[in-house]
Amino acid sequence: MSEAIRVTVWNEGVHESRQHPEWIGQIYPEGMHGAIAAGISEHLGELAVVRTATLASQPDHGLTEEVLAGTDVLLWWGHAAHEQVSDEVVARVHRHVLAGMGFIGLHSAHYSKIFTRLLGTTCSLAWRNEGERELVWTTDPSHPIARGVPNPIVIEKQEMYGEPFGIPHPDEVVFLSSFAGGEVFRSGVTYQRGQGRVFYFSPGDQEYPVYQHPDVRRVLANAVVWAHRPEATRLTEEQLGCTHPPRRF
Amino acid sequence: MSEAIRVTVWNEGVHESRQHPEWIGQIYPEGMHGAIAAGISEHLGELAVVRTATLASQPDHGLTEEVLAGTDVLLWWGHAAHEQVSDEVVARVHRHVLAGMGFIGLHSAHYSKIFTRLLGTTCSLAWRNEGERELVWTTDPSHPIARGVPNPIVIEKQEMYGEPFGIPHPDEVVFLSSFAGGEVFRSGVTYQRGQGRVFYFSPGDQEYPVYQHPDVRRVLANAVVWAHRPEATRLTEEQLGCTHPPRRF
Amino acid sequence: MSEAIRVTVWNEGVHESRQHPEWIGQIYPEGMHGAIAAGISEHLGELAVVRTATLASQPDHGLTEEVLAGTDVLLWWGHAAHEQVSDEVVARVHRHVLAGMGFIGLHSAHYSKIFTRLLGTTCSLAWRNEGERELVWTTDPSHPIARGVPNPIVIEKQEMYGEPFGIPHPDEVVFLSSFAGGEVFRSGVTYQRGQGRVFYFSPGDQEYPVYQHPDVRRVLANAVVWAHRPEATRLTEEQLGCTHPPRRF
Amino acid sequence: MSEAIRVTVWNEGVHESRQHPEWIGQIYPEGMHGAIAAGISEHLGELAVVRTATLASQPDHGLTEEVLAGTDVLLWWGHAAHEQVSDEVVARVHRHVLAGMGFIGLHSAHYSKIFTRLLGTTCSLAWRNEGERELVWTTDPSHPIARGVPNPIVIEKQEMYGEPFGIPHPDEVVFLSSFAGGEVFRSGVTYQRGQGRVFYFSPGDQEYPVYQHPDVRRVLANAVVWAHRPEATRLTEEQLGCTHPPRRF
Repeated sequence: MSEAIRVTVWNEGVHESRQHPEWIGQIYPEGMHGAIAAGISEHLGELAVVRTATLASQPDHGLTEEVLAGTDVLLWWGHAAHEQVSDEVVARVHRHVLAGMGFIGLHSAHYSKIFTRLLGTTCSLAWRNEGERELVWTTDPSHPIARGVPNPIVIEKQEMYGEPFGIPHPDEVVFLSSFAGGEVFRSGVTYQRGQGRVFYFSPGDQEYPVYQHPDVRRVLANAVVWAHRPEATRLTEEQLGCTHPPRRF
Repeated sequence: MSEAIRVTVWNEGVHESRQHPEWIGQIYPEGMHGAIAAGISEHLGELAVVRTATLASQPDHGLTEEVLAGTDVLLWWGHAAHEQVSDEVVARVHRHVLAGMGFIGLHSAHYSKIFTRLLGTTCSLAWRNEGERELVWTTDPSHPIARGVPNPIVIEKQEMYGEPFGIPHPDEVVFLSSFAGGEVFRSGVTYQRGQGRVFYFSPGDQEYPVYQHPDVRRVLANAVVWAHRPEATRLTEEQLGCTHPPRRF
Repeated sequence: MSEAIRVTVWNEGVHESRQHPEWIGQIYPEGMHGAIAAGISEHLGELAVVRTATLASQPDHGLTEEVLAGTDVLLWWGHAAHEQVSDEVVARVHRHVLAGMGFIGLHSAHYSKIFTRLLGTTCSLAWRNEGERELVWTTDPSHPIARGVPNPIVIEKQEMYGEPFGIPHPDEVVFLSSFAGGEVFRSGVTYQRGQGRVFYFSPGDQEYPVYQHPDVRRVLANAVVWAHRPEATRLTEEQLGCTHPPRRF
Repeated sequence: MSEAIRVTVWNEGVHESRQHPEWIGQIYPEGMHGAIAAGISEHLGELAVVRTATLASQPDHGLTEEVLAGTDVLLWWGHAAHEQVSDEVVARVHRHVLAGMGFIGLHSAHYSKIFTRLLGTTCSLAWRNEGERELVWTTDPSHPIARGVPNPIVIEKQEMYGEPFGIPHPDEVVFLSSFAGGEVFRSGVTYQRGQGRVFYFSPGDQEYPVYQHPDVRRVLANAVVWAHRPEATRLTEEQLGCTHPPRRF
């Protein structure tokens, strides 16, 4: 475990680059991917090597075979441009997750092609954007992803995401959120898919400085460590397929 | 499925009988067990035959072998007198659940001997009794236990039960609650234990008329139908043990 | 529950129609779909209305919006022609499962587009076709799908399907198989996906008369009853999406 | 993570000390606990400090509060003397597991007081002792407990343990076994109970040299590493109980 975790933060980057609203420039001068990457480095230091990519990155939105083969954990933020992500790249990311790459879906990535492909369901939810206070409660205080965060994490302004959340039964529910308006949400859930560990964490929005929140950054850094599987060799496409053992015992 | 479901509502009955506070007499003139039984009959009518028993019932707190053998679903409310329930009766109820009897744990029954015996954990939680509003959200709208209830169920005054809730990973989470004070709770969870179906539902308290709430009564009636397994024969003690198949295939 | 369950048995029908080997005509004179349909009707009688469709059915492989809207439970057999199933039909079936239609995947359907779409993983496995004896053991004797079948079910000749099986953690494991060559397999597993109940059952092959086996037919009939959700309204596409509740509590 | 894992191997030691059959002396000259401890040390070296205790150890079968407080992972073998383990010691072990101590149940420990207490079910199974070959198949090759073992592990002579196994739905199924006689068994399963990680592994018997088997020893060493939670502080009895947060958000 002496080698650094190779992290790629992917953000569609559309709110930042196209819309240029003043708020996002003020909140996220380096883009949301910049803030997320900084938060991970802040906590993991030399334990992680973090790079970023966006929808506009060339080629392949920055997610070539070479990049993914060199990525231990991929974080994914998307919202306005899910449909612009190429199906070929989605298939490639999917294969790498099943082969052992960790995957962390963030906020509106619940509706991304890759997340719904991994989960197999609608991943729909209830939402309301009025800048409400979100409280993120830990349901399993011993889970590595919850290490070192207060219970609850208090986020002063957030978009509300509420139940019912159209996901399969999670392997683990790490966090549950409540909102000032009364709603609840399974805001931190884990799944195993093939050899890959998947974590979804709903706090985070382009309009509020959620990825500047110290506890949110701590959760993301914890999740990177959790999703990394240093002991598991990345499987080849052939190894992911069916096998034909001729020998009987 | 033409025969009626045989339901037994067990309530320790201590708040009602010993303390005689005015409030409980006003809220629950027939005791909490009376209100719970009435709620089930109200919804299921002739589909259920409902009886009640309390800690003071003779013999065996009303839970003899004969009563349990004739019970398809047992509901359990306890709070002040968990320790007064005899270990022999707990073992008997436990055996019947594993053998196929449904079990519905209510509110402070989270700390009852039988519930912690079935789950294997502390079942501890956070609590605060200030008569807060509880909102009970359905996470799985297609679950039979959630049929016909609004989302959320609004309970004006309740004791707060909050996470972390010291239970194993549930088989299903049907309801999540939020409280006016901001806390969240897995308020409706299911488990299978042996042949028995187990449901825990946290709303319900001796100080507030929660079991008079029409939606809460609906949930309890739904849960009775869900926990009943008309197709499963109640296993004998011998059938619950190890078996010794001599034949090899 | 007085209305009959509307069942559609879908079979690609390629082994039957194109290859015309003698064996399949002898084993399955009405095609595998015919045998599967007959097995369900044999057990459910008037409780089910069963129809069939194949890849060659026009239009849309027989799986139009109208057919699916009128189907409570869909069974799926495929092997040689997974890629020939149109993506549009797969998306339609997927939507109906999430909206509440039951889905039963059979044998080599583990690799079908619709099954891997629902599960999100490779669904790969180990296999060997030498006509070995398969023993299908019940792990949960109280499960409705296992009702009335011996433990184990003995299938004299079968293709071997073995672990590791590339599926997510199942909600329930109902059956485990062993093979004469020593392999094991999770041969009966359940998942919930949206409102839909999904069951996968591996016994069944075009070369052996597995769908003529009385216990296998019993399992399929049980699974149809289990996957049917008479109480759940089929959701519309709009209801499957995100919702926007304006009101705060 | 630089400190060694503190492991305690508990074995009732009755077959070794009372019955003195020739076979056990030949197979396990240091007792089964000796072989298990040697297997762990063989693989973990200085990463683990391993001690042993038996039913006859004084006081408290060697499981005092001090010993458990100094144990990161406890392994448990029992068979003939489950009832002789004091209830007080069982309660103490149970509390330490919920508070964060790892627990590994071995073979006939399925019927021990502590294992059934943790799981809440009968834990009954089918068995036949004819020295059959057991094949232990890995269902999740990326699981840390399965690291480095062949698929399958071949054990030439074993007691058969078969389904149905009366346990709750496992969090994870790591191994499935088949036996020469045709039976199958969930031979490696995991659970979380409170902060404690629980693993059950069925291979291992007093009559066969299973704990001398290099792959079995590897599994046990892997399981020790997996069950150890270096980041989690052992909870106090008070911390395991309910909490009373006065503050509202």
